[in-house]
Amino acid sequence: MENRNDIEEGKMERKGVESVKETMMLRQPLLQKRSNITSQIALVGAKVYPIESLDYEIVENDLFKEDWRSRKRIQIFQYVVLKWTLALCIGLGTGFVGVLNNLAVENIAGFKLLYTSNLMLEEKYYQAFVLYAGTNLVLAIIAAALCAYIAPAAAGSGIPEVKAYLNGVDAHSILAPSTLFVKIFGSICGVAGGFVVGKEGPMVHTGACIANLLGQGGSRKYGLTWKWLRFFKNDRDRRDLITCGAAAGVAAAFRAPVGGVLFALEEAASWWRSALLWRTFFATAVVAVVLRACMEFCRSGRCGLFGEGGLIMFDVNSAAASYTTPDLLAIIFIGILGGLFGSLYNYLVDKVLRTYSIINERGRPFKILLVMGISLLTSCCTYGLPWFAKCNPCPVGVQEECPTTGRSGNYKNFHCPPGHYSDLASILLNTNDDSIRNLLTPGVVRDFELSTLSVFFVFVYCLGIITYGIAIPSGLFIPVILAGASYGRLVGTFLGTISSLDVGLFALVGAASFLGGTMRMTVSLCVILLELTNDLLMLPLVMLVLLISKTVADCFNIGVYDQMLKMKGLPFMEAHAEPYMRNLVARDVVSAPLITFSGVEKVGTIWQTLNMTRHHAFPVIDEPPFSDAPELCGLVLRSHLLVLLKGKKFTKNRVLSGIETLRSFNAFDFAKPGSGKGLKLEDLDIKDEEMEMYVDLHPITNTSPYTVVETMSLAKAAVLFRELGLRHLCVVPKTPGRPPVVGILTRHDFMPEHILGLHPHIDPHK
Amino acid sequence: MENRNDIEEGKMERKGVESVKETMMLRQPLLQKRSNITSQIALVGAKVYPIESLDYEIVENDLFKEDWRSRKRIQIFQYVVLKWTLALCIGLGTGFVGVLNNLAVENIAGFKLLYTSNLMLEEKYYQAFVLYAGTNLVLAIIAAALCAYIAPAAAGSGIPEVKAYLNGVDAHSILAPSTLFVKIFGSICGVAGGFVVGKEGPMVHTGACIANLLGQGGSRKYGLTWKWLRFFKNDRDRRDLITCGAAAGVAAAFRAPVGGVLFALEEAASWWRSALLWRTFFATAVVAVVLRACMEFCRSGRCGLFGEGGLIMFDVNSAAASYTTPDLLAIIFIGILGGLFGSLYNYLVDKVLRTYSIINERGRPFKILLVMGISLLTSCCTYGLPWFAKCNPCPVGVQEECPTTGRSGNYKNFHCPPGHYSDLASILLNTNDDSIRNLLTPGVVRDFELSTLSVFFVFVYCLGIITYGIAIPSGLFIPVILAGASYGRLVGTFLGTISSLDVGLFALVGAASFLGGTMRMTVSLCVILLELTNDLLMLPLVMLVLLISKTVADCFNIGVYDQMLKMKGLPFMEAHAEPYMRNLVARDVVSAPLITFSGVEKVGTIWQTLNMTRHHAFPVIDEPPFSDAPELCGLVLRSHLLVLLKGKKFTKNRVLSGIETLRSFNAFDFAKPGSGKGLKLEDLDIKDEEMEMYVDLHPITNTSPYTVVETMSLAKAAVLFRELGLRHLCVVPKTPGRPPVVGILTRHDFMPEHILGLHPHIDPHK
Repeated sequence: MENRNDIEEGKMERKGVESVKETMMLRQPLLQKRSNITSQIALVGAKVYPIESLDYEIVENDLFKEDWRSRKRIQIFQYVVLKWTLALCIGLGTGFVGVLNNLAVENIAGFKLLYTSNLMLEEKYYQAFVLYAGTNLVLAIIAAALCAYIAPAAAGSGIPEVKAYLNGVDAHSILAPSTLFVKIFGSICGVAGGFVVGKEGPMVHTGACIANLLGQGGSRKYGLTWKWLRFFKNDRDRRDLITCGAAAGVAAAFRAPVGGVLFALEEAASWWRSALLWRTFFATAVVAVVLRACMEFCRSGRCGLFGEGGLIMFDVNSAAASYTTPDLLAIIFIGILGGLFGSLYNYLVDKVLRTYSIINERGRPFKILLVMGISLLTSCCTYGLPWFAKCNPCPVGVQEECPTTGRSGNYKNFHCPPGHYSDLASILLNTNDDSIRNLLTPGVVRDFELSTLSVFFVFVYCLGIITYGIAIPSGLFIPVILAGASYGRLVGTFLGTISSLDVGLFALVGAASFLGGTMRMTVSLCVILLELTNDLLMLPLVMLVLLISKTVADCFNIGVYDQMLKMKGLPFMEAHAEPYMRNLVARDVVSAPLITFSGVEKVGTIWQTLNMTRHHAFPVIDEPPFSDAPELCGLVLRSHLLVLLKGKKFTKNRVLSGIETLRSFNAFDFAKPGSGKGLKLEDLDIKDEEMEMYVDLHPITNTSPYTVVETMSLAKAAVLFRELGLRHLCVVPKTPGRPPVVGILTRHDFMPEHILGLHPHIDPHK
Repeated sequence: MENRNDIEEGKMERKGVESVKETMMLRQPLLQKRSNITSQIALVGAKVYPIESLDYEIVENDLFKEDWRSRKRIQIFQYVVLKWTLALCIGLGTGFVGVLNNLAVENIAGFKLLYTSNLMLEEKYYQAFVLYAGTNLVLAIIAAALCAYIAPAAAGSGIPEVKAYLNGVDAHSILAPSTLFVKIFGSICGVAGGFVVGKEGPMVHTGACIANLLGQGGSRKYGLTWKWLRFFKNDRDRRDLITCGAAAGVAAAFRAPVGGVLFALEEAASWWRSALLWRTFFATAVVAVVLRACMEFCRSGRCGLFGEGGLIMFDVNSAAASYTTPDLLAIIFIGILGGLFGSLYNYLVDKVLRTYSIINERGRPFKILLVMGISLLTSCCTYGLPWFAKCNPCPVGVQEECPTTGRSGNYKNFHCPPGHYSDLASILLNTNDDSIRNLLTPGVVRDFELSTLSVFFVFVYCLGIITYGIAIPSGLFIPVILAGASYGRLVGTFLGTISSLDVGLFALVGAASFLGGTMRMTVSLCVILLELTNDLLMLPLVMLVLLISKTVADCFNIGVYDQMLKMKGLPFMEAHAEPYMRNLVARDVVSAPLITFSGVEKVGTIWQTLNMTRHHAFPVIDEPPFSDAPELCGLVLRSHLLVLLKGKKFTKNRVLSGIETLRSFNAFDFAKPGSGKGLKLEDLDIKDEEMEMYVDLHPITNTSPYTVVETMSLAKAAVLFRELGLRHLCVVPKTPGRPPVVGILTRHDFMPEHILGLHPHIDPHK
């Protein structure tokens, strides 16, 4: 038994006593300067962004209970109808944005490429380059200017931020309407401007922004004060909507409705319910219908160059996918290669992003200059490289026209003499989608030279890395698919003699392996690839290669989105507790001195506290004469306190006046407004005599906060916090005779940096 | 404030006082007769099954912590390798069982049908019937005898039981090796015996059984005492394995690996982690590889009649699936129809099951008689009905042979003159798989008469309902697909003039609608259908129809599996709390008097308590002189107490002897053994003088149990209990000066029946 006591006492000495001391300072003068503010600030490089945690817990205070009891059947029905209507709207909105994006990109990039190749046919090579590079530069400047001046949050993929939001962290203006606007038009300009970027990440972000806009609970400014919408004025319902939005985004980008649902499930969402699966599925089904309808409408050329091709983006249509042992070995090799390339890619992206953040911090003009530089580099490479490649004579007896006339096709003429085509130009000087389509073409239809594939792979791999961090909306999927398909086809061409599998299928497997190596998803990638290529027979091979590449890459580093989350300093709660957390208990990480309120509190004290601290919740303690001994009544939120103070239901004496408050307020008065729209302390106008009055906090106190005992293992507390999606977790004392609550744990307290900072002797890997 | 007090006091009067009283009886003579035993017995009809809850919580006692600290890198690596190896084994096992099932069914049923049709060609109609019905009857008797005498738990689909297991309820011998054996061979006999049953439910159950067998942590009986396997001796890892098993089962039954993962996710599992997604995906990938390899091996006729056809079971291969507004209206109509038929189906299945349970209770012979009766009825219908249908002349100019020779084909001759075929016989007198294939044949290839489809639909719908409850392993998927495809094709044939969609596609949509109407799944069904038919272009239509049919059917009743869970009395924890739970607090449902132990307890007291009660966990209270005041030390499990008593580390006096215990025991001594293999009280041999000695419970006490305050809203406590997968939840007092724990909540206490029994005045719908 001595052993046991040693362990416990050791811990007491280490940390426990301090936190007890801190607890003893409760209710002392509130003017003390707080040293650390819980979970509201995160450092990104040298920049400080405001980050807010989200409240998923249902605040069960008297007002809520009152409202709950009086809620009628018809209201519940309205709520359900509205939920589905919003899912429908998200699907419609994201679907139309997807069509708009496609339409704009296909037309801008299409005409750009068409006029360039026309000029080249007339042998006006310099003019062609000026037209090509000039158009790209103008589009790049527009995209960069939008990002730099209107919504810096719109730069990059957006998937990490959406993932963080769904984990309970709201980064500044990440889902604001301005971000939505920039994301849509910046992405169009970026993709049409010839950058090695995709539209998938931006589409996911766009879907999430649309969902957030719909979930604001109306807008007084625009007269949208429809009563029903107030049901959605809480973070819980907004989270569900944004999950639908993320799924709809993938569905719109890849025309992959099931893949979208699985993406939201596997990568984006941190919490998932069966009911949500169904609603998300509905939203993506709507997207599919919208896409199909628009393409049907555009089929006869009514939308310019958009609308050709079916719903399947890259129809592979392999007649017979039978494979033998050598094929399988080749596939395994590609899987390992994908893992290695993928982890290296993630490593380099991280390094480049850190470098760029230094440049970007120097100001907006530098951001734009960087974008311009990359744009010129891209234009020079895509236009310049094919000059060094040799011209091939057109093959005889192929169905396809050679050399290609018009925009897309497998045999670009470029600078070659008539009857010849340039191999490299066919994949370099093309839209990303067309390049992928060309790479996936079966080997019987089209043969690429080894040198072409090698040059293209190096080009896409390197430019993909250096393009990602610049100030334009940029997706990672398409560059990764391009690079993967090119080395897959390369391996396939090498092994042409010993493998019976088509090189087009090798390209598909290569794309899968590289996707697995960078993104580290499995089922969702599998389904997305299936829906992209319509090739069910390749499914077992794609599964195999994804598993291998993910396993290999996981040995080196973490997935690219998780890496970016870390780099951006977003406090992401992992699903599992770290091993060393089992050696700590809850009180070991309670750091800040606790500030509590009485059940009936002086207005001045509340005002002063709100003014001095940035806490978002305060425990409410019932004390004599309202109870026999001090006991924890519950938790009160800052935002609710502000509303209560604004209502000015104060009393001269320290008496219970809750019934008054219940009468004069409505549960919806306390509903959480849209981001940045909440009441602020400055909005309150409290007179000096009111400061001396009292207010009853009971009606707005959440009487059922989740609690853990101070000796609860930190790992278990973290699981509780994460699984229930909490924002605040009360720590209660184990031994009697102490204050009824000894601290509050927030997301910040579970972050490894915080814990290891408090306990530097802990080995984080143990 | 009066208002507030009223509410609180009202509750105190209602229930609180009682539970306080009960708490006061703690530590009184333990001989009192307990009136209700928590969550260990469930009534099914008039029968009592032992049901055990599962422990998913990590028991963080001193032994565990000791073990955790000393765990080396290599052990963690071993654990990871073993996890993946087991997933591989589950995939291999389930894959081979799937092949075995297929092989046996195709051969038995194939030769049965072949000889029957040969006899008919010779116009020996009576002999043909005797052969056909006789074979069916023999197979039926075998299946029923296996079920009745060896493993009654193998009857039915098994999906509800697997679902319950993954929710934390272990029904008696549901995953035992005998059940596995009967499930495999019973399912083969049942499906080959011509019943209107499928093999999918049984395959899911088989996969789960295989996983459970592998997760037992070795077997001393068979010399499998490999050290590594002990890592898996806990319910947490077993749950993960069984999830993999369920997914592998679907993958093997439908040759649908992604569908399998989604089925496990959407329907089977109650808890899900991203890591599990990946492992499940691996298991189903292995299944796909096994299936493919075996089919490749069998292609050249080495396995009798098995092995024809590709990996896609029902390749629809619709060239162009373009649809217009009238088509969409027809699809919506089918969706509504599917919802109506589906909910009616569920209602009737429930009624029939309740009737059968009365028959089945009368004894094993009655079970077998019932099966024989249904078998004869099925044989008579399938053989008899085509006689009333008219013979059609063979169409000219079709590619297919007419009349069909051999086993499968679209034009069965039956009793018709040469050059003619029997429409009805082609789908009735066939294996279920071939019937589905025929129904999905495009309209240009094959035309079915309206009367044929109507008769077939009525036959399958009715026989599906009355077959499900009999004592053979029976899946629901295939009957539902058959019925759905027939009415879908029927509607398609009706609307032939106004709709341009193929009747084969109508059949597919019909199958989807009926599946949605009965099972109420969405994404997983969608993907399963996609993988079954290889028709990606139909995806939006299938999504639409599934959403409609689920919505319509949900208005009437719950899904068929949930319904069966309820009927079997399995205490299933729903993901959401019932609305009325918000009006109750935790102490309102604490019912049983609480029995606690001291930190150092008398052996006799423990023995007596274990003998008198069936509780699975007991709070441990530290009392003076070991602490200043009584405080909750933690929770100790019955199974751990038994192991501790068996070890006999007793002391004469009341002293802390934990260090001795820590030295002489190992964490794995307390690992949870396989079902039914744990230590029992009767295995202990404690002498009378030992009964007077003391034992230190601290080393085996879980010092971090999850707790809720007694005034916590019951809804929130239920969410905590469900989300964290708990078995026991301690309720602690709010006010000081009372015992440190006032009760333990278990699964049973959250069941609506229990709550509404305690509080009959509550309106369950409010």
